[in-house]
Amino acid sequence: MPTTDKIVIICDDEATTEDWRNAIADYAPNMTVEVYPKDTEREKTQFVLVFNPPENVFQKYPNLKVIASMAAGVKHITKKNKVSKNINVTKVNDAMHHDDMANFALTLTLSHLRRLPVYFQQQNQALWKTHPYKRPEETTIGIMGIGTIGKVIGTLMLKNNFKVTGWSRSKKDIDHIKTFHGKDQRNAFLETAEILICILPLTKETEGILNREVFNKLPKGAYLINIGRGKQLVEADLLEAIDKGQLAGAALDVFREEPLPKQHPFWNHKSIMITPHTAGSVTPESAVRKIASNYNAMKNGKKLVDVVDFEKGY
Amino acid sequence: MPTTDKIVIICDDEATTEDWRNAIADYAPNMTVEVYPKDTEREKTQFVLVFNPPENVFQKYPNLKVIASMAAGVKHITKKNKVSKNINVTKVNDAMHHDDMANFALTLTLSHLRRLPVYFQQQNQALWKTHPYKRPEETTIGIMGIGTIGKVIGTLMLKNNFKVTGWSRSKKDIDHIKTFHGKDQRNAFLETAEILICILPLTKETEGILNREVFNKLPKGAYLINIGRGKQLVEADLLEAIDKGQLAGAALDVFREEPLPKQHPFWNHKSIMITPHTAGSVTPESAVRKIASNYNAMKNGKKLVDVVDFEKGY
Ligand SMILES: NC(=O)c1ccc[n+]([C@@H]2O[C@H](COP(=O)([O-])OP(=O)(O)OC[C@H]3O[C@@H](n4cnc5c(N)ncnc54)[C@H](OP(=O)(O)O)[C@@H]3O)[C@@H](O)[C@H]2O)c1
Ligand SMILES: NC(=O)c1ccc[n+]([C@@H]2O[C@H](COP(=O)([O-])OP(=O)(O)OC[C@H]3O[C@@H](n4cnc5c(N)ncnc54)[C@H](OP(=O)(O)O)[C@@H]3O)[C@@H](O)[C@H]2O)c1
Repeated sequence: MPTTDKIVIICDDEATTEDWRNAIADYAPNMTVEVYPKDTEREKTQFVLVFNPPENVFQKYPNLKVIASMAAGVKHITKKNKVSKNINVTKVNDAMHHDDMANFALTLTLSHLRRLPVYFQQQNQALWKTHPYKRPEETTIGIMGIGTIGKVIGTLMLKNNFKVTGWSRSKKDIDHIKTFHGKDQRNAFLETAEILICILPLTKETEGILNREVFNKLPKGAYLINIGRGKQLVEADLLEAIDKGQLAGAALDVFREEPLPKQHPFWNHKSIMITPHTAGSVTPESAVRKIASNYNAMKNGKKLVDVVDFEKGY
Repeated sequence: MPTTDKIVIICDDEATTEDWRNAIADYAPNMTVEVYPKDTEREKTQFVLVFNPPENVFQKYPNLKVIASMAAGVKHITKKNKVSKNINVTKVNDAMHHDDMANFALTLTLSHLRRLPVYFQQQNQALWKTHPYKRPEETTIGIMGIGTIGKVIGTLMLKNNFKVTGWSRSKKDIDHIKTFHGKDQRNAFLETAEILICILPLTKETEGILNREVFNKLPKGAYLINIGRGKQLVEADLLEAIDKGQLAGAALDVFREEPLPKQHPFWNHKSIMITPHTAGSVTPESAVRKIASNYNAMKNGKKLVDVVDFEKGY
């Protein structure tokens, strides 16, 4: 057993590594922090904090117990690594981060309702032309993946007078939100969603879920906001749906390839708004609390929080 | 005294005239509606509903009692007309319109905080670059003109976790909003306003109020949102303040000349966002209720609501 408390950071970005190192030093000054690949005595390491780890890196730690993701998603961990079943993988589940995500979903929703993308384009042409708008109380937001973040989004939308529906795998009961669950109720959900906000995790079931079939179930002229993951979207189907008028457009924050390649047709599509994966940035200062508390839980043999269930895939 | 109830519409826009005519027909089917200049028996007309009336038109109505504005502002009425003191001028003061104004103020505020104008410009260049953002709870909104609409804006901002301050002519007491009033407290107010939202009426005192001196009192890097009136802004001072970094930028919905002339420097200024006077469109269907109720008040010698005080100028 290790005599000192130690967390090893395994991360492909130097600035991010520094931010987390500082946050841990501030919050848990007794914790030793080392950074891969310069870390020492790997047999003593039980807890790693990771983002985009290199291939097969976890095999170097024979006594690893916890892999803590620096993000809400964990696909970056399993992309190039197998994780053995006795290791707990945790994700970031931080209230401030959820609030940021919800705030961004609201920003994109209002921007669409009040036609900001249209006015931006008109400004480029010095064109003065007013367009009608719909009010929040006349608009239903459908939240695809009404889990932790989805629920925070829903609550914020309700506060701003929108009507809200939601869809998840398991049944939910949320005040003032009409909920649907499972494959059987998917179409009934989609029919309500004038603005569809996707905040699903990426799994085998959700990959490519934003496709022609789904778009065709939405009310005509619906708008798509994807802040989940890029691989959930079938890009050609989106272009087609906009082209034929089934969708009014989309705001996309996540993409199959990030950064979005320079020559990608989304960049200069007049009905697609692009933001560079900026819906919510995890703040190490805020997220570090639960990381440290999971470290202590591990040390004391207690139950960890925010553990990923690899059977469900998220 | 007239035997039938009659409202005469005096308006420079045909579509607007039609919208109001329909709204009155729907809401008060017994009301006769005539449209200037084709209206009859002008000596019997007591109530006119106007937008941008032609010069000296009211003199044609010897028994006029009420001039109802189709808008929240009334400058369009007094621009080319003198209004004698025994005539009541009313403005639109409609809850749905106020909600729309507040919703738009929130839209522009969030758009600025989450850097949408920057991302729109980056999209034109296929540029992927993330920028930091401030959270609502870290941001103070200063409402310049915290009257009817300003208060609705403030309430919506509070709901969305912003800190809010306000400034008016007379003293106010509003829950959770730090209020200032009068010239003496103006600078103290301005020092709080990281985002300054101007929703003042246009009067002798407020013309040109958005000037260098005011901008210099704001926190460095503040943002201006003008949804009041274009003549409140000294345009050269705004350009200078942005140029020297005192202001981060501005979102402008109202202008000295509307439509904004094609060659105006605001159009292609990268830190100024332009919308074509679209903050809130008065909906005749909604606003007609109070117009009709003021008509009845006039008929029965009761007190009218939303009457303009020409001593104050709004
Ligand atoms: N753009 C960004 O910056 C950003 C930032 C953070 C997160 N994200 C993405 O958002 C995702 C969600 O985060 P979270 O913290 O809210 O996760 P969460 O609490 O696990 O919620 C996920 C929701 O999706 C539902 N779901 C999963 N698979 C489904 C399926 N096959 N059919 C129907 N519903 C399904 C879940 O249903 P159950 O409730 O029944 O399990 C749950 O309601 C993350 O995985 C990440 O991909 C993006
Ligand atoms: N962009 C658009 O589409 C749009 C739409 C609607 C309205 N507007 C503009 O918004 C204005 C305000 O509408 P409203 O219905 O909220 O009017 P309101 O209820 O009369 O409120 C005006 C506010 O401004 C304050 N004020 C006026 N002169 C002042 C001065 N010299 N110094 C400090 N404060 C002063 C008033 O103070 P007191 O409370 O002490 O009187 C009041 O709080 C309208 O006049 C119109 O110009 C624009």
